[in-house]
Amino acid sequence: MIEIERKYLVTSLDFLKEYSSKNEIAQGYLNSNPERTVRIRIKGDKGYITIKGIGSESGVSRFEWEKEIEIEEAKSLLKICEKGVIEKTRYEVLSGKHLVEIDVFHTENDGLILAEIELENENEAIVKPNWLGKEVTNDKRYYNSYLSQNPFKNW
Amino acid sequence: MIEIERKYLVTSLDFLKEYSSKNEIAQGYLNSNPERTVRIRIKGDKGYITIKGIGSESGVSRFEWEKEIEIEEAKSLLKICEKGVIEKTRYEVLSGKHLVEIDVFHTENDGLILAEIELENENEAIVKPNWLGKEVTNDKRYYNSYLSQNPFKNW
Repeated sequence: MIEIERKYLVTSLDFLKEYSSKNEIAQGYLNSNPERTVRIRIKGDKGYITIKGIGSESGVSRFEWEKEIEIEEAKSLLKICEKGVIEKTRYEVLSGKHLVEIDVFHTENDGLILAEIELENENEAIVKPNWLGKEVTNDKRYYNSYLSQNPFKNW
Repeated sequence: MIEIERKYLVTSLDFLKEYSSKNEIAQGYLNSNPERTVRIRIKGDKGYITIKGIGSESGVSRFEWEKEIEIEEAKSLLKICEKGVIEKTRYEVLSGKHLVEIDVFHTENDGLILAEIELENENEAIVKPNWLGKEVTNDKRYYNSYLSQNPFKNW
């Protein structure tokens, strides 16, 4: 399927007053190349494998394939991933009819907070919460695959 | 799981007199690095995603994880694979209690025929059919991931 989403910097912690869910995420890459990203993720007590292709020119649309897998399998697969496992806490907030996912990064990416909004089409209007800052959808440095190899602390 | 197998060159076409199954295979790589190979395969009317880690020093044992996926998903994923999709015909022959898989390669790897025998342990004895030649288990040039980037025609 094609995933359509916009990504933003987060400018305050006000989202902490209104989130509906919170999960710890650890994820590594079997390939961090953005043309064929292969990601292994553990989110809470579930495992996932996700494959993404290169995005559209705007960066908003991207081919994505995902399957849930056993958490024990995910742990085994994480062990053979490239160096640079990403750890982050994900909060979910409803803004208008859209779900906003906010990632508070830890360890090597400490200090970075990003928000993503998934859309049904590229031109859909968004109700922007006041804690959403600059849009960085098209900036590949904010791809988690890039952060895994070039962590925020080294920027 | 850990996959234990030995690989051989095939020296004659005598296996064609005794095979029990025959399938066309097309496979590509989302990562051809042998430390974390990610393979998409279409075999007959089924699709698979397979991930392999680095092998033991002998090359006989290797971490392997595989899931069957929808053939349409496999076709979509093949499109974002690295250049160098491998096409081959696979024959299966029973030799003693072991299943032998023989791959007759096509297109860029035309002329190459390889056989693989899956074992329960590294020291298990094998009944070698007379069409099995030199063992190449530990020669990484015969990894399909290597062949996808350095096809046999260029050797």
